[in-house]
This record gives sequence, C-alpha cells and structure tokens, in this order.
Amino acid sequence: MTWNVYLAGEIHSNWREELIKAVEAKGLEVEFSGPVTDHPASDNCGVHILGDESSDFWKDRKGAGLNAARTRTLIENADMVVVKFGEKYKQWNAAFDAGYASALGKALVVIHPEEFNHALKEVDEAAKAVARNNEQLVKILEYVTEGTLS
Amino acid sequence: MTWNVYLAGEIHSNWREELIKAVEAKGLEVEFSGPVTDHPASDNCGVHILGDESSDFWKDRKGAGLNAARTRTLIENADMVVVKFGEKYKQWNAAFDAGYASALGKALVVIHPEEFNHALKEVDEAAKAVARNNEQLVKILEYVTEGTLS
Amino acid sequence: MTWNVYLAGEIHSNWREELIKAVEAKGLEVEFSGPVTDHPASDNCGVHILGDESSDFWKDRKGAGLNAARTRTLIENADMVVVKFGEKYKQWNAAFDAGYASALGKALVVIHPEEFNHALKEVDEAAKAVARNNEQLVKILEYVTEGTLS
Amino acid sequence: MTWNVYLAGEIHSNWREELIKAVEAKGLEVEFSGPVTDHPASDNCGVHILGDESSDFWKDRKGAGLNAARTRTLIENADMVVVKFGEKYKQWNAAFDAGYASALGKALVVIHPEEFNHALKEVDEAAKAVARNNEQLVKILEYVTEGTLS
Amino acid sequence: MTWNVYLAGEIHSNWREELIKAVEAKGLEVEFSGPVTDHPASDNCGVHILGDESSDFWKDRKGAGLNAARTRTLIENADMVVVKFGEKYKQWNAAFDAGYASALGKALVVIHPEEFNHALKEVDEAAKAVARNNEQLVKILEYVTEGTLS
Amino acid sequence: MTWNVYLAGEIHSNWREELIKAVEAKGLEVEFSGPVTDHPASDNCGVHILGDESSDFWKDRKGAGLNAARTRTLIENADMVVVKFGEKYKQWNAAFDAGYASALGKALVVIHPEEFNHALKEVDEAAKAVARNNEQLVKILEYVTEGTLS
Amino acid sequence: MTWNVYLAGEIHSNWREELIKAVEAKGLEVEFSGPVTDHPASDNCGVHILGDESSDFWKDRKGAGLNAARTRTLIENADMVVVKFGEKYKQWNAAFDAGYASALGKALVVIHPEEFNHALKEVDEAAKAVARNNEQLVKILEYVTEGTLS
Amino acid sequence: MTWNVYLAGEIHSNWREELIKAVEAKGLEVEFSGPVTDHPASDNCGVHILGDESSDFWKDRKGAGLNAARTRTLIENADMVVVKFGEKYKQWNAAFDAGYASALGKALVVIHPEEFNHALKEVDEAAKAVARNNEQLVKILEYVTEGTLS
Repeated sequence: MTWNVYLAGEIHSNWREELIKAVEAKGLEVEFSGPVTDHPASDNCGVHILGDESSDFWKDRKGAGLNAARTRTLIENADMVVVKFGEKYKQWNAAFDAGYASALGKALVVIHPEEFNHALKEVDEAAKAVARNNEQLVKILEYVTEGTLS
Repeated sequence: MTWNVYLAGEIHSNWREELIKAVEAKGLEVEFSGPVTDHPASDNCGVHILGDESSDFWKDRKGAGLNAARTRTLIENADMVVVKFGEKYKQWNAAFDAGYASALGKALVVIHPEEFNHALKEVDEAAKAVARNNEQLVKILEYVTEGTLS
Repeated sequence: MTWNVYLAGEIHSNWREELIKAVEAKGLEVEFSGPVTDHPASDNCGVHILGDESSDFWKDRKGAGLNAARTRTLIENADMVVVKFGEKYKQWNAAFDAGYASALGKALVVIHPEEFNHALKEVDEAAKAVARNNEQLVKILEYVTEGTLS
Repeated sequence: MTWNVYLAGEIHSNWREELIKAVEAKGLEVEFSGPVTDHPASDNCGVHILGDESSDFWKDRKGAGLNAARTRTLIENADMVVVKFGEKYKQWNAAFDAGYASALGKALVVIHPEEFNHALKEVDEAAKAVARNNEQLVKILEYVTEGTLS
Repeated sequence: MTWNVYLAGEIHSNWREELIKAVEAKGLEVEFSGPVTDHPASDNCGVHILGDESSDFWKDRKGAGLNAARTRTLIENADMVVVKFGEKYKQWNAAFDAGYASALGKALVVIHPEEFNHALKEVDEAAKAVARNNEQLVKILEYVTEGTLS
Repeated sequence: MTWNVYLAGEIHSNWREELIKAVEAKGLEVEFSGPVTDHPASDNCGVHILGDESSDFWKDRKGAGLNAARTRTLIENADMVVVKFGEKYKQWNAAFDAGYASALGKALVVIHPEEFNHALKEVDEAAKAVARNNEQLVKILEYVTEGTLS
Repeated sequence: MTWNVYLAGEIHSNWREELIKAVEAKGLEVEFSGPVTDHPASDNCGVHILGDESSDFWKDRKGAGLNAARTRTLIENADMVVVKFGEKYKQWNAAFDAGYASALGKALVVIHPEEFNHALKEVDEAAKAVARNNEQLVKILEYVTEGTLS
Repeated sequence: MTWNVYLAGEIHSNWREELIKAVEAKGLEVEFSGPVTDHPASDNCGVHILGDESSDFWKDRKGAGLNAARTRTLIENADMVVVKFGEKYKQWNAAFDAGYASALGKALVVIHPEEFNHALKEVDEAAKAVARNNEQLVKILEYVTEGTLS
C-alpha cells in the first residue's frame, strides 16, 4: 500500500522538501501532499482569481475558501496527517487542521519544539506521536509504513 | 493525486468542453465527469430503455431514475463538485446537486452571473468559491490541484 | 415517537401555519421546524447582527451563514423534510435543501403544482411522495406517523 | 427543540457566564456546555486523580486525556459550537476544537477581535458567523433558535 | 434506557399485538413500532392520498413511497429490528427490511418456522438470534433489555 | 471511471454470463462481481472447509458466513448493485441484498418479470430502475456509464 | 446532559455496584449500563431461550448472539465506555469491547492493575484514562461530567 | 478486485509467512498487511525513535502510539481482517483489533484452537468464520475471493 501523508502546518521553512527528500532516499512507499506553501500566493489567491475586494476580511475569506477546497480534500484523502508547529506566527490553521484530521480518525503525528509542550497538550493527546524534528519523522514513516527501525 | 471533478448544472452550452480543453492544455491531473448533456437522451432515456409511459409524470420519473443512478454515483466519487447556473431554465436540478454535494462534504464551487447573487446566496454560502466564468474556473483548478497561480 | 418534520421552501404564503393547524387538529405527534419566514429578517439578519457591508454580495453571505446555522441543523435533526415549490421566485434554496436532505437519507416529501413536474423531475425522483396541496400533506403525515388513512 | 451549544475557547474571562445569563434572560431554549474553566483543575486533573508524574509532558498528557473525554463528547453532542479566541495565550486548543467541530459538520460560530482576522481566516471560513462580542452572540442565538431579530 | 424495537414482516396475523401485550405484562422498557398492518390501507395509501393511477405498477410505487417514508425512518430510529417470516406470500419486503437493518448495524432478530431454515440462511446469519415463536421473542426482549432469564 | 457493478440474485440461469458478454462487446468500463453461483459449492462451502456439522441449521450457518464475507464486501465496494428476481425459489437472499445495498446508498437496479410487480413494490421503490431483461440492463449500463442511448 | 456510561469487562466482582453507589452518592447525572453479570445466565441464555444444542460451540454461539444484541446496542448508545480488566480469566471479550468502542469514537476509560500495563499497552493507548481502582473512576466521572475535582 | 487482508494477532510463529506463501502459490488476488512482527522493534519503537522514558508505562505508550498509527490505518483500509489467537500471552491486542474491525463492518475471520472456544465466544460470534489452521484459512481466502472450493 502507498501511504498518503498530508503535511500540515509551518510553511516558512523547507521542512517538507527535506522530509520528502529523506523519505525518497529510503525508497518508502509514501505520497506527500500539503497546503500551498507559497505564502503570497496563498494569501492572494482569492482576489487574484476571483476579483478584488475593498475589505481585507473578505479578501481573506475568498482566499481561505480556495485553500480549504485544496487542504480539506487532501486531508480527507490522507492516511496520515503530520502537523508541524514552528517558532513563528499564531498557527491556528495548523491546530485547526489537527482537529479536523482527528475528528476524521486520521493517524495524526505532531511535530513541535519542547517549549510548546504545555500549550499543545490537547493536540498532542490526540496524536499518535509527538516528534521533535525531521529525523524522527523519517523514522516514524519508515517504521509505520515498512515496519523497520533504523 | 488525480482529482475527480464533477461538472453539474447547465447543459445547454459547451462550457464543459471548453473547460476540459483549457484544463488539459495546462496538463492538470484532473478527471472530469458530469451528467448526460444530450438533452433529448436525458429526457427520454427512461422510456427509451424501459418502455413507454402514458403519463409524462412517470416518463420523467423513469428517466430521472436512470440519470440519478449516474449522477449521484459520480458525485459521491468526486473530490470537487462544480455547479454552473446559466441564464435559462429553472435549474432546480443544479441546486439539488449542490445541496447533495454539500451534505456529503465535497468541495463545492459555484459558477453563475452576478444577477443571480441574491437568489443563490444560500448556495454560494455553502461553496468554497463563486466564479463568474470558465477562465476563473481553470485558475481555481490549477491553484487547488497544483498550488500555482497564473 | 414524536416525528420531527422540517418544512422547507416557499416562505411567501401561510402554508406552514395552515398545515400545522390542520395537523394539530388531528392530534398527530409531530413537531415542526423550518427556516425563518420573516423575509426582511432573513435577508438582513447578517448585517443587522454583525455589522454593515458595502457590498450586497457579502451582506447576503453574512445572512446566509446565519440562516444556514439554523436550517442545516434543523434538517439534520429532522425525521422528514417537506419541500414546497411555489409559484414565485427562483427557489434554488428549496432545491438545495431537498438535495441536502436527500444525501442525509431523510424521508423527503415534495409539494408543487403540476406545471413544475418536468422541471422538478430529479427532485421528485428523490422524494417518497409528490403532493399537490396541504390536504394531501396532512393525510401523508397522518398515514406515515399514525398508519391511518382518512 | 432545545439547542445544545458548546462554548469552546477562552477560559480566562467570564464571557460564558455573561452569555448564559443574557440568553436565559431572553428565555431561549438553549443548553450550554463547555470545557472545565477552572484553570488549575484543568491542568492538574490528570495527576490529581491518577497519580503524580515526574515529567511535565506526561502530567499534561494525563490531564489532556480527561479533558478530551469531556470536551470531545460534549462537542459530538452539540448542535452548535461557539469558539472564542481571546487576547491571551496560544489558544491552539480553541483552534483544534474548531477543526474538530467543523469536520463533524457542526454549526460553527467564531468570536474574536478584528486584529486576529488574518491569522484566523481559515477558521473564519469554516464558520457560519464571525462575531465580535457577546452582544452579537446573543442575537445570533436568538435568531438561529427563535427566528427573531432584536 | 427505553429500547425502540421495530417489528417487521408478517402482517396477516396478530403476532405484534400478542407480543406487545406479553411484553407489557412483564413491564419491560420497550417501545414498539412497525409498518402499517392494515393491508388494504397499505396497498391503497398512495392513490387514496395522492390521486389515482391507471397502471398498477405506479399505483404500487406511490403506496410504496409512503410506506417507505414510515418504515425506513422507524428502522433508522430503532435499537433492535425483529423480522417475522410467516407461512404466506413472498415476503420480499421482510427480507429487504432485514438487509436494510443489517447494513445500518441494528441488532437483528429473525423469527420463522424451521421449514424456512435453508431459504433464510443468509438472513439468519446476519441475525443475533433466530426465534421460532413469540414466547421466545418475549424472553429475548426480557433478557436483552433487563438481563434476566425467565 | 471504471464502474464496479455487483450482480445479486438468481443463480440458476446464465444471465450473468450473457450480460457480461454483451457489456464487453460494447466495450463499457464496467467490472462485475457477484455471489458464488456454483450452487453446491455455495451450500457446502462451510462444512467443506471448516468441518462437518450434525445439524443442517449450523451447516447452513457456516456456509452463510463464508458467503457473507464475500458478498457483503463486494456490495460495499460496488458503485451499482443489480438484483435479479427469477421464477424459482424464495429468493429472500436477493431481497436482503437489495435492502443492504439500499441502506448503503448504492445505485440499485432491479430486474424481475411483471408478475412480481406487486410483491416487489417496496424493493422497486428503492431502485433507480426496474428492468425486465438483460437487453434493458445492457442499455442501462451503457447509458449510466457512457451517457449514450442505443 | 445525562451521561450514558457503559461498564464493560470483569463480571466476577461487585465493582459495578460499588461504583454506581459511589456515583449516586455524589449525585452525578450518569446512567449506567453493562453486560449481563449473572454468569450462568450469560452462558446459558441462548439454549435456555432458543433450545438445546448438542455442541458447546453452537451453544456458546447462541448465547453470544443474545449478549451481543444487548451489549453492542448499549455501547453504541453510550457516551463513555469503561472497561475493567480483572485478575481472572482471558477477558478477550473485554478487549473486544474496548476495540469496538474505540472504533466508534467513544470516550474510553480503562481500569486494570499495574501488572497488566505491558499486555494492555495498545488498549491503554486508545483510552482517555487508565485508572487503577473505583476511587479513581468516581473522580474521573465527577470531573468529566461536572468539571469538579475532589 | 484485489482483496486487502489484514493479519492480526499472534506474532510469535511464522503463520503469516506460511499463509502468504500458500496464497501466492494459488495465485489469488490478495494483498496482505499486518502489524510489525519483530517483537523487540514493536516494543521499543517508541523510545528508539522519540527518546527514552524513565517509566515503562510511558515507554509502552510511545510504542503503542506508533504501532496504532500503522495498524489502525491498515485495518481501516482492509476488506477482510483475520485475527489469530495462539497459545501464548494475553493477546488482548488481538481481541481489541477484532472489536475494532467488527465495529467498522469489516469481514472478520478468527483462527484459534478449540480450547479457546468458550473464552472467545463473543469474538467468534462477530466473525464470518472460525478457522483452526492455515489450511482452512487458505481455502477460505480462495473461496471468498475466487468462488472456488478446493
């Protein structure tokens, strides 16, 4: 079986690219998906495609609709959802995705630094694993999909 | 992932063919499906296959059953449902499909001219995007499936 | 068992009040619910409660959100959904509700004049009964909930 | 119908008590539920009941499990979920609850100050209404449950 | 907990009345429901309420729709579904109800004479118990709802 | 899309082989599945594989379990379920499968001679089409999957 | 809200009676249900009601069917499922119930002595809390349903 | 159709390898999956990947989380779940998986020696077949997937 893994959360680092490269190097049967990580595109897609808005609130709404059409569908098609909480921004979208995936019964894996342990305790409780970095994530994917520890 | 996109609504223009051609030109991973757009076939399929009826009401019922066997199944298999409201006819079937898709949690996109804004406000509210023309639809599909804005 | 019956569709006549009165006169165990039928309230609720909008499109969106919070929840809690298509307006909202109820597996009953037979054939096909007037609806409710024909 | 409304989010103000009092004053048929709002109890319940832990991570896990037993069950039993984002703390739990409720198809209402508009745009998009204060919330509840605007 | 028990199948004997009387005599917390057992009413309800049909096929369809509005809804609301196969008629409706209840995960109990054992083997396999008479049914209901053997 | 069509019901004629041949001749994208049609194998599989039983009732149960493992799984994986009622036997299993498929929301097509119209009226009501022979079935499959009438 | 709590597992001690008494003493809004705890009745119910079997295997099957009609239905109606693993017997039924409840998304609480920690690690992982005794269970129920720590 | 069969339970014998070899020799269209059968890896995966724990309880929790991410996902993707109860250990995990699969409506097959008949009677009741050895399992898979008895 090919595992569909959705990579939610932080979009301001290259953790996805590095993770995908490492997983490919191991030859795991995993297909990754995720949100649009081009931040300006993600923010402006709504008005860019559907026309300008005078209010930022509705500009954001238009963009959020398009992003939701992508992200909700991909999460519903995923076998596992990984959510990374990074150092910056409010990241409520990441937590929302974690809750959404959890309610759908997806295997949830969370990655965040230790300093967020307390603030993320409810999210961690819903997760099958709390990882700290990509190295652990690669090993999790290897173990979960292939059954081997390295 | 190949996206399955169901194109509901208006059957009296060639918007589907044009959309499909434009999407194929961009090489997007999308497979389209939709209702039978041969209007006489759609109206007569029931009695043509299953035998005549003396009453129009039951002639319509027979045909609607066959069409529902097709359309409901395709909508249930779709990742995204696009519903176009055109200038002509009552189009209650289009609105029915929008409600059906919405209850199934499908990513719903609606396309209609501005004059219908008020009459379609509940349908629009259930949608992830309200587009005005095929050009916008192509960009939506490109953004949602590939994550790129053009 | 008390039956929860949601009355969707036409809001510009007093068919709900008459139906409810007739059903109460028969002492049936039915509780009715429905959309807000005060048309100006339904149109303006969004901006009235949440603040003005400069664009009609977003004014409608705000109102449609509040109405959906009410109507979707009531439909999900209903045992039967009755949808009336009247003589006036586009009534796409009525057809949307019919599709929504159908996808949830609710017992759907439709009421409309014969002139709409062809235009509503897909909706009728999804319904357990197509009625023409309140008298028939009352008898349907009596038969379905009490098992008696009058 | 009595509406079950779950009040998620901010626990460091008395917005729940004020909201409940205002709703009761109007005589609306609403029953409220929510998380445990005694912050020390919420943080310590796990170790208090089930025994000490040497690590804060597992202390938090024990408490989060008990809180989830309460909150997830109440959210699943709710007709509407209101999530308030306040000024303080990370509030990832609030966003998680919003995602969880959204995936279950609950009518979601969000309340937050305007300064969070952009950061909460995905959560707002999933909501039926974005309110700014309790006064609006009371009016929303009155409109949604009673159909009257005040 | 009050158990909702739907009594499907045979309508040409008074097994329901006898069962209900026996269960009431024991004071069990059970509420019964079932199809309309007035055979002429069940056959004619469609045309009686909704108007004549020239074809028996569509006369039957109209009636079946009304009966389905009742029976499907009651089965979906039931905790247990009992299906009795008697000596007479084809009873395909009884087997249909058994399949419907089984797919919904309802606790299914079947009652039929031994001579039907082979013909009903697939239905029996889906059932939690195969009873031969009302006396056994009463004991089953007593055991399942009260936990006592008599 | 390749349509998965499950062929339930009558196993004492070669209607499946003929249907499949006719569908293949048209080149339709349909994959068929169905119950085991080797009657002795279907009856004896349980004791043949799992050991003898002294009672016919439990011999049947063992066999029915194995058959259900096959048939229920295939029905759940089907897009359309066709159920044929032939001239012989009780065929309660066919009606059970129709009810099972209906509760799962599958597109249901029924095929039976006119003489069974009244006895099968509830099953017919749950179906999208009532066909009389293989020729009609082939046309239905062609119309539903390809959208063309022949 | 009244919480429905199903008490699965160990039937050879009076932990249920003691728990219920302690919970009632606190006046919590909890309704308890559980399997039949009269061991001989539970073992013999099938043949007692439905007639003797010559084989123990089928005697057990008959009884297990009746017990499943009770226990599965109650678990599906429960808000929380508590599973106690005691010192004696294989208790596979307890673990089966835990898996069943977990797949349904019920709030699962497990109670067992520390010596079973390793053997029950997968069950514990699926639980919201692992308790050691009734005292902890009472406090859990008080906290989860009332939000108070004692 | 390729059948996905999950092999749960006993990990201290080579029954999986032997079964898979026998099934491959017959050329059946079956893809197998299962838990990690390297016992030390399964026990230590959590701390190996995610870091040491001072308490065995939390070491087990970490490992159980990773194993659940694998096993639950594979069970949800399976068409059939086979659970083997062997001679050794508590095997509560096997029974948990059986309950989990049963609640999801998977075709469940159980394999165990006769001595466990009484202790496993509830699990057996939920199963479509109770086999005693791999030879029977191979024949079951051949019959269920190919419809042939050997």
